[in-house]
Amino acid sequence: MIDLEPIHVALRDRSYDIEVGVDTLGRIGECLAPLLRSKKVAIITDPVVDRLYGARVRDSLTGAGFSLSQVVVPQGEEHKSLRELGRVHEELAGARLERSSTLVALGGGVIGDLTGFAGATFLRGIDVVQVPTTLLAQVDSSIGGKTGVNLRAGKNLVGAFHQPRFVLADVETLRSLSERELRAGIAEVVKYGVILSAELFSLLEDDADRILALDREILAEVVHRCATAKARVVMEDEREGGLRAILNFGHTLGHAVEAMTGYRRFLHGEAVAIGMAFAARLSAARYGFPVADADRVEALLKRFGLPITIPGELNPGDLARAVETDKKRQEDRVKFVCVEEIGKTRFELLSTQEIEESLRAI
Amino acid sequence: MIDLEPIHVALRDRSYDIEVGVDTLGRIGECLAPLLRSKKVAIITDPVVDRLYGARVRDSLTGAGFSLSQVVVPQGEEHKSLRELGRVHEELAGARLERSSTLVALGGGVIGDLTGFAGATFLRGIDVVQVPTTLLAQVDSSIGGKTGVNLRAGKNLVGAFHQPRFVLADVETLRSLSERELRAGIAEVVKYGVILSAELFSLLEDDADRILALDREILAEVVHRCATAKARVVMEDEREGGLRAILNFGHTLGHAVEAMTGYRRFLHGEAVAIGMAFAARLSAARYGFPVADADRVEALLKRFGLPITIPGELNPGDLARAVETDKKRQEDRVKFVCVEEIGKTRFELLSTQEIEESLRAI
Repeated sequence: MIDLEPIHVALRDRSYDIEVGVDTLGRIGECLAPLLRSKKVAIITDPVVDRLYGARVRDSLTGAGFSLSQVVVPQGEEHKSLRELGRVHEELAGARLERSSTLVALGGGVIGDLTGFAGATFLRGIDVVQVPTTLLAQVDSSIGGKTGVNLRAGKNLVGAFHQPRFVLADVETLRSLSERELRAGIAEVVKYGVILSAELFSLLEDDADRILALDREILAEVVHRCATAKARVVMEDEREGGLRAILNFGHTLGHAVEAMTGYRRFLHGEAVAIGMAFAARLSAARYGFPVADADRVEALLKRFGLPITIPGELNPGDLARAVETDKKRQEDRVKFVCVEEIGKTRFELLSTQEIEESLRAI
Repeated sequence: MIDLEPIHVALRDRSYDIEVGVDTLGRIGECLAPLLRSKKVAIITDPVVDRLYGARVRDSLTGAGFSLSQVVVPQGEEHKSLRELGRVHEELAGARLERSSTLVALGGGVIGDLTGFAGATFLRGIDVVQVPTTLLAQVDSSIGGKTGVNLRAGKNLVGAFHQPRFVLADVETLRSLSERELRAGIAEVVKYGVILSAELFSLLEDDADRILALDREILAEVVHRCATAKARVVMEDEREGGLRAILNFGHTLGHAVEAMTGYRRFLHGEAVAIGMAFAARLSAARYGFPVADADRVEALLKRFGLPITIPGELNPGDLARAVETDKKRQEDRVKFVCVEEIGKTRFELLSTQEIEESLRAI
């Protein structure tokens, strides 16, 4: 059996562990029993995840003496809203949760972000445990305390930093993902390779087939490596004062692509793949990233079945302006994460016009 | 002219000053110019305050080189909601506010709490300056970073701790309050005397007439004393781990009275006055607070035209259960702030039944 070290995220009084494992969902009760401040827990999940894993999580928690309530949030990014947040809050108040109670986010990124923000704001802050069930959530969104919801004006424009109390990532849950969802999650995995680890990047090149075949051992290793990388970045820069922004690699354009296609055509990871391919080409054209490495980035994304080209019908000018409304803006220039070599990044401030020109050129 | 020291709230990287003065609104631009991270500012206010003071604040800010946008929130507690928060957020996004931008809360408690929470959550946190224009806001809600909105299930159940960057309290604005609003604000002033300062309590007894006549000098002195007291409590216990809860004196029952009368019959301060009178009587009956001092508390509240008796039609059992849904609950007991002597408090945990019995007895 695979036995991976817990990953410790050291953030003074907000420190916590991430446990990556195989088939560990049924152990959540014993993990949380020594950790939580009271026995009152509310699970926030969606109907699909609830049907697959709800009973196991509830059984484990009640077995460990927790008293449970549950809020089910409909599936879909459109429910990551202030409106749904309000509904969750009213239900938590109805279930008489207290300041010492804990929310358990059981699901993917939408559930994790929404629950995290609910925890950050209910009674001005209660504990949250993240139990991510998608690859994206396991390697990225469940770790580091970024929580929030979308506005009509854009994604994640409202939120809070609120570190979880514990993260339990059971890679067994990845086996119930659709192939498309899995591939989209792999985009974020590739991201860690490109921005932080040439070793991980090579491993992904070598083991792509095993990953796509959902080999438990390689999944656990990959998730553990990514979670470790993410934890390292968060420890150095909890509130995105600097370094943490490298995690936006591929996201700046990716978010704009998502927005301009109405959040329907692409999954988040797919849009990020397009953004990463663009950032790699931009880095090659302007900042000395070897063209051969930009080729490797594209080849790896394609290997995982991810899109790498911007849809032809998206006008470069519109897209550049859509980038500009993103929150990474600084006085009319956009902070772009570029690559110098695989595993090493640099920030560049680009004007809307420079982005538009690059979009036309690439 | 009255010249009062700025009050420094020392909270490491969240430190800030409170300036209490007379006719200082027109100086806000010069106060903020050296303080803010960028020149982009959004004023959040209500239509009434906007009409009275909006132009002066805007003139001062534009004179100091700030570029402004403004969001007007309808007056009334019912707009301290997630729904209105969402509307404010969409407008801030539309005005292209950035992480380095600042919100200026110009108004009373509703505006301050809503703006504070908007600032805590927009782009996961931007700076907020509080410009309180009611007595309640000047002595209490603008200081200390408690922000939030109401749920149907109860007041202030959703929020965040988010310290302001600066507080400017111009007591001249108190002269436009209705007499009823002013009196309600005085309830919070009396509170500081009861829980923290026998000296302030005596001053209120001696100078009640001057206060009610809106003498600028006494208003500035009283607001300065209360703000200093609040700042001291916040510095010792920023996130209400202990001491800060003494500020809930009178509020635990007060909130229940407000809730059971549909938030229509009493202003917040009036309900708090009823709660303080009850807490004083409870303290006399059970915890050794001299009956003569409980008499003084009631007499002072009455002197300021504040209610001190629970409306007869409120059933003690219902009221005790309403207290219980408040967020000051700890495992089915409610933390009540009681008084030992004027200026000195103690916490008591009371069961619903004990509260009901006391309500019947007093």
